[in-house]
Amino acid sequence: MNETTMESAGETSATTGGKLAIIAYSGTADKLIPLGVLAQAAAAMGFAVEIFVTGFSLLAFTKERHELPFAAEYAAMAPQLAESLSANKIAPWDEMLRQAKELGARVHACSMMSTVMGLGPDDFGDLVDDVVGAATFVAAAEGAETFFI
Amino acid sequence: MNETTMESAGETSATTGGKLAIIAYSGTADKLIPLGVLAQAAAAMGFAVEIFVTGFSLLAFTKERHELPFAAEYAAMAPQLAESLSANKIAPWDEMLRQAKELGARVHACSMMSTVMGLGPDDFGDLVDDVVGAATFVAAAEGAETFFI
Amino acid sequence: MNETTMESAGETSATTGGKLAIIAYSGTADKLIPLGVLAQAAAAMGFAVEIFVTGFSLLAFTKERHELPFAAEYAAMAPQLAESLSANKIAPWDEMLRQAKELGARVHACSMMSTVMGLGPDDFGDLVDDVVGAATFVAAAEGAETFFI
Repeated sequence: MNETTMESAGETSATTGGKLAIIAYSGTADKLIPLGVLAQAAAAMGFAVEIFVTGFSLLAFTKERHELPFAAEYAAMAPQLAESLSANKIAPWDEMLRQAKELGARVHACSMMSTVMGLGPDDFGDLVDDVVGAATFVAAAEGAETFFI
Repeated sequence: MNETTMESAGETSATTGGKLAIIAYSGTADKLIPLGVLAQAAAAMGFAVEIFVTGFSLLAFTKERHELPFAAEYAAMAPQLAESLSANKIAPWDEMLRQAKELGARVHACSMMSTVMGLGPDDFGDLVDDVVGAATFVAAAEGAETFFI
Repeated sequence: MNETTMESAGETSATTGGKLAIIAYSGTADKLIPLGVLAQAAAAMGFAVEIFVTGFSLLAFTKERHELPFAAEYAAMAPQLAESLSANKIAPWDEMLRQAKELGARVHACSMMSTVMGLGPDDFGDLVDDVVGAATFVAAAEGAETFFI
């Protein structure tokens, strides 16, 4: 790679839209909100957005609907929070994620944990683009703002 | 932006003090410790520090004092840990954060979740600098070491 | 630092193998899986891997064996998950971490939390390379994909 190319590459990652890469792991209902908000906000800013769904969060992305638990420590706040989200007309997390995807966000399901949880590619809803290994995500997340949620 | 400016911008983010950007979300009492420690350590190293308070962590930043829950899985360790933190003269998390702020750290409350939780700008204590949207934080976190706590 | 040196520094961090830096904090048994998987995958890709063990996760790295709790919200899934991990011949997290370390990954225990939890350097097993302060980790994590697990 010559110096000019190098500088161009540097410019791209340092000064254009940026990149957000999230590992969605915990699978509590409340944590889907920051997932949706961050993905939607970053995509709207022109960021590349890469989401890697693994662990218990896989249950939020299956065709079959699962009743997800709320964070144990704040479970008592769940009904009040749900009511307030609705009263304030905050879009549901999956709608925010759908908006992010229309702007280019990509959602990957973790192949290893899918296997462990007995989930095949056909078990996931249309929010999931593909099923990949952790290495693919780690490569895609280079230079990104990275969060484990 | 001309090339000289571009390179200057690159220099700043790549070679000076660095940047730390934390999303404080979970709101368990124990997780305020790494928040304080990381912010204080990074600020003391000359890093820019940006903290975005959202979710249940907003309850740790209100004027009104809330009794925060401890991580459910380790709740039995809470008394012993509190005693040991005190015996080892570890500064409380808010004091560490205050030290970080004296060195330039900035603390932002999430506007959306503040609204959802019925909190206005006047409800926050003096650790909070302002109330902003997620997009503002995502922009400020570019090039940072980013953590979701 | 002159401009040539500066550009070389930029090249290194922008174009070689990359870096992964993880803070292992939560200390639930389930979260050791993504810790092992990410470390192993990144190390195999030629990434520098830096792991900072703090909080309750220190209990997973002591010579003395501790029975770690499972994420409270998904505790009911623990037996089924353990069985499926075994049936699918997924390596245990510590074996994955050991593979990562053979490829250069470094594991640091947090000095402050070690003290708070009454753990000295000799209390840690051989997965831990050294006991350091948060500032050392923050410095080592510059330019990395950073995750708080």
